[in-house]
Amino acid sequence: MTPSSKALVPFVSVENMMRLVHHLGIETVLRDLADHIEEDFRRWELFDKTPRVASHSPGGVIELMPTSDGALYGFKYVNGHPRNTRSGLQTVTAFGLLADVATGYPVLLTEMTLLTALRTAAMSALAAKHLAPRGAHVMAMIGNGAQAEFQSRAMQAIVGIDTVRLYDIDPVATEKCVRNLAGSGLCVVRCGSPEEAVEGAHIVTTCTADKQYATILSDNMVGSGVHINAIGGDCPGKTELAPAILKRSSIFVEYPEQTRIEGEIQQLEPDHPVTELWEVISGKARGRQTPSEITLFDSVGFAIEDFSALRFVKAAIQGTPFSEDLDLLADPDDPRDLYGMLQRSAAVSEA
Amino acid sequence: MTPSSKALVPFVSVENMMRLVHHLGIETVLRDLADHIEEDFRRWELFDKTPRVASHSPGGVIELMPTSDGALYGFKYVNGHPRNTRSGLQTVTAFGLLADVATGYPVLLTEMTLLTALRTAAMSALAAKHLAPRGAHVMAMIGNGAQAEFQSRAMQAIVGIDTVRLYDIDPVATEKCVRNLAGSGLCVVRCGSPEEAVEGAHIVTTCTADKQYATILSDNMVGSGVHINAIGGDCPGKTELAPAILKRSSIFVEYPEQTRIEGEIQQLEPDHPVTELWEVISGKARGRQTPSEITLFDSVGFAIEDFSALRFVKAAIQGTPFSEDLDLLADPDDPRDLYGMLQRSAAVSEA
Repeated sequence: MTPSSKALVPFVSVENMMRLVHHLGIETVLRDLADHIEEDFRRWELFDKTPRVASHSPGGVIELMPTSDGALYGFKYVNGHPRNTRSGLQTVTAFGLLADVATGYPVLLTEMTLLTALRTAAMSALAAKHLAPRGAHVMAMIGNGAQAEFQSRAMQAIVGIDTVRLYDIDPVATEKCVRNLAGSGLCVVRCGSPEEAVEGAHIVTTCTADKQYATILSDNMVGSGVHINAIGGDCPGKTELAPAILKRSSIFVEYPEQTRIEGEIQQLEPDHPVTELWEVISGKARGRQTPSEITLFDSVGFAIEDFSALRFVKAAIQGTPFSEDLDLLADPDDPRDLYGMLQRSAAVSEA
Repeated sequence: MTPSSKALVPFVSVENMMRLVHHLGIETVLRDLADHIEEDFRRWELFDKTPRVASHSPGGVIELMPTSDGALYGFKYVNGHPRNTRSGLQTVTAFGLLADVATGYPVLLTEMTLLTALRTAAMSALAAKHLAPRGAHVMAMIGNGAQAEFQSRAMQAIVGIDTVRLYDIDPVATEKCVRNLAGSGLCVVRCGSPEEAVEGAHIVTTCTADKQYATILSDNMVGSGVHINAIGGDCPGKTELAPAILKRSSIFVEYPEQTRIEGEIQQLEPDHPVTELWEVISGKARGRQTPSEITLFDSVGFAIEDFSALRFVKAAIQGTPFSEDLDLLADPDDPRDLYGMLQRSAAVSEA
């Protein structure tokens, strides 16, 4: 008795996600992800938007991030546990699901730890494409943890940077990053301080992991014309930038209701003006207006980006061997006969 | 390159859930589920309780139901699409996940379509154990759909009923139910009307599927001393009982904030007195007080019951072959080296 096709949900394991990325090439994946996000940001208004549903505990947070465009429904499960690395675990792990709104049936289950790193990088690069100064080709990467190489490769593939200037409080992290970016075509520069890293950079990306008010960038480190891509401040109490920088910047956000709680702008008054990035992407608002302006993308990660990433995976696995069918849904011949299905399965397994 | 044990999450497919039920026996499963729910209802106050997160569409609803006891976090994905049966699909499908709060790592992924039917039946029987009149042994089962046999078997295993009186607007559903309950030890009576079904019944269970204000039970059908187990009214606009019955009954609910929106009591004033079932189970409130009282369990299903069911499955599969390991979590040797893991996997797959 094999389950019918209605019972089966395509599942993309970590192994298969890696195979898919190698099959397509990471640059193509990052560009395709950015395209899917851009498409969804253009139709932002039709999405069902709710802030994430968070369950906080002393060690971290577990979140569910649902959204829907009316035809598909998606959600991501994601945790954030800063102390996990001490026991050899990931700070952030994630998986996601896409379902058909008309029937409620899941149509894709996938790992999202890798996929989130990829979509976060694609999102950053998409924002930089719209906000960074013309001709930007040098990025400072402050914080050389799990996100750093993905950020660098996305900025290379989508914005066209050719140089990354790396700094981390832990030189081992920087060495790992240098090693991983060898052969990428990027010119990689090790820096001994954040000040050194930002020298000559057109884009400054901050991505550090401490859950506390930190000042990774102080006011005097940020010159005119720079685009700041602030990734690490993404939950209450966790910020990376000095408030003075925020006050000098034009600030762009994903979803203000969420960013005011979780982003860098939690340090500002609740009515401090910000521009929603979807408005820039869809031509309803202006992005960078002068070459000397400081633009800041206060990134916290929003459910629609995960939705776009899930859509990308669903399309990308078609006709490939990079998914397996999971017997996740009970599918009796007669939908009202769930008990009969259970009974008949006993007869079969005893036979 | 096989994933490390940290990457793997035990997964219980529909097939394996059926095997597990047959391995243990359905009576044992129902009793164990009721025991797990009872345990969790006794420590109700320590749970993180939020109403379900619902995404409504013209065809139905998709919901996420999260909760946590501080050590474990669980959520259920569940849809409700009444028109699904027309295209041979289940009205309700579900899956669930349990995670370790300390690390955020998932520890169990399981089908929950079957498991929800089992836990809903166990919950009904647990409520009846505390509320039904002493010596109750006859149940009317109005609505003979997917839940009917599970409800009957749970009332048999946990409350000790010996007779079910079946009625459905569709005689085919009743025949299916009669067929499935043959050999269960229950005396099964086909009835031609709801009025006939409730004759002599100590417990009346209603479980019909229409998403509209319906009156499955009218006032004159409910005599004194009866316990009503109302399952079908479980979302806004969907009710089964005449308001007059509610006004004559002592009403018991799972979580008032949710039941006032979704349950039968959405027909009453928002301050109509109700008793929380956990208070009865933990001895803080009285259940049935007189033999002539009408008790009503206005059941909508709450996240804690799913949490109990997930705990049950996690314990029950230990040492059995009824789960498989899913490569759901990326697990690099160095948690900060997600990109390196991806790179090295290419080298391996090319080799």
